[in-house]
Amino acid sequence: MSGHVSLVGAGPGDPDLLTVRAVRALAEADLVLYDSLVPLEILSLASRAQRFSVGKRAGRASVRQETIHALMIRAARRGKRVVRLKGGDPFVFGRGGEEVLALRAAGVPHEVVPGLTSALAAPALAGIPVTHRGVSSAFAVVSGHDASAWQPVLAGLPPGAATVVVLMGLRSRAAIAAFLLERGWARSTPVALVLGAGTSRARTWTGSLEALGRDALRDSLATGLSDAPGTIVVGDVVSLAASAQPQEGAVHAQGR
Amino acid sequence: MSGHVSLVGAGPGDPDLLTVRAVRALAEADLVLYDSLVPLEILSLASRAQRFSVGKRAGRASVRQETIHALMIRAARRGKRVVRLKGGDPFVFGRGGEEVLALRAAGVPHEVVPGLTSALAAPALAGIPVTHRGVSSAFAVVSGHDASAWQPVLAGLPPGAATVVVLMGLRSRAAIAAFLLERGWARSTPVALVLGAGTSRARTWTGSLEALGRDALRDSLATGLSDAPGTIVVGDVVSLAASAQPQEGAVHAQGR
Repeated sequence: MSGHVSLVGAGPGDPDLLTVRAVRALAEADLVLYDSLVPLEILSLASRAQRFSVGKRAGRASVRQETIHALMIRAARRGKRVVRLKGGDPFVFGRGGEEVLALRAAGVPHEVVPGLTSALAAPALAGIPVTHRGVSSAFAVVSGHDASAWQPVLAGLPPGAATVVVLMGLRSRAAIAAFLLERGWARSTPVALVLGAGTSRARTWTGSLEALGRDALRDSLATGLSDAPGTIVVGDVVSLAASAQPQEGAVHAQGR
Repeated sequence: MSGHVSLVGAGPGDPDLLTVRAVRALAEADLVLYDSLVPLEILSLASRAQRFSVGKRAGRASVRQETIHALMIRAARRGKRVVRLKGGDPFVFGRGGEEVLALRAAGVPHEVVPGLTSALAAPALAGIPVTHRGVSSAFAVVSGHDASAWQPVLAGLPPGAATVVVLMGLRSRAAIAAFLLERGWARSTPVALVLGAGTSRARTWTGSLEALGRDALRDSLATGLSDAPGTIVVGDVVSLAASAQPQEGAVHAQGR
């Protein structure tokens, strides 16, 4: 039997938000190489597999990318069914493209199983539609990890022309808020910061763009979620969420 | 027993790309109100439900939005479990936000079940990562339906600063290509046009931005897919797909 690699998106964290194909790939897997943000509830669906964490948390890889490639290729060549399990979607800031190129170059059969990206699932689970008739007809998704990547995109965006979603933006939220305010975005633009979307610890802070970078937010984040992945949503669509409050800094639980 | 409405994203069309929660909601449904792009394979999972098409195809609604709201609310008040089934994701150009507001105003218990949006699943299934280290670290999603919505977003985007994904853009592809070329995007920028993603009829055309609006493309589209939903991807990430060809206008089948 020939080996095979599935690059599987685990979605935002809730096992019920896996795709049917992802569940099947996990059930059939001999080996699962997983990112550290994937919860145990999802890993345990790979009941007959060996499971290894290959790290990756807030941009820090515990295992080098080339090592991940080598592990996948070696196991597949030994006839194993390998699942490379990634938080969210493999092709949205997931380095899935690099892994596909490595598998293709090695001649290893592979497939990509898309997953729900936190860029959309985190706002959705917090009740925020990224588009809404008469409010926003477009959205832009950037990573907060590297200013040289988000600045050119946000620099040319007229205030309010699109909903802005920032992944991995917890640390750069003050810089992003200042950048948008300098470019004419209203101080009162509604913002949501969704932490731990799809997990039982999910929390959403809502407030204004002006408040996004302020110290007050730190207290909310400090309560056990400072290490959770955060999704920032900037735009008037935020005010459509049932939990959106007129007062600054309201934090709501959305644990499932 | 109290009624309930689930706004469910059906994903790109493949039943295996439904979420576990979507499958369960369909299996338990008494009534399914579905958009016309949802395939029969998915509808048949709602084995005990009454099923009604509420239309919507290429922006034309066969049933008025207010009527959809009234149907959902009436059935839920009669104790029914209602699934409002939408192609892709309910909150990405799906008017899901309007339906949530109507349900909230009526005091009807409801939930949103995110689905895979074609904006990301169509490129993924064609082998195209919307982000890729060193190639693109951001993406913008617009609807081609209304130039007043996509023009402000694309006008300020420096060429190549983000992958551009256009939903509902088949008819406006020439206008979008011309607009980007005028703003300095290279004529050779790789473009993919994915038709019928997630279905057995899936096809991807790849070519250059210059070729996107040309007549040649029409022949490819005319072969039975002109009415399928199309997703346009503009950016260097397109060249990472295994099917990307140096020659213009290559069309590849990706039927599952």
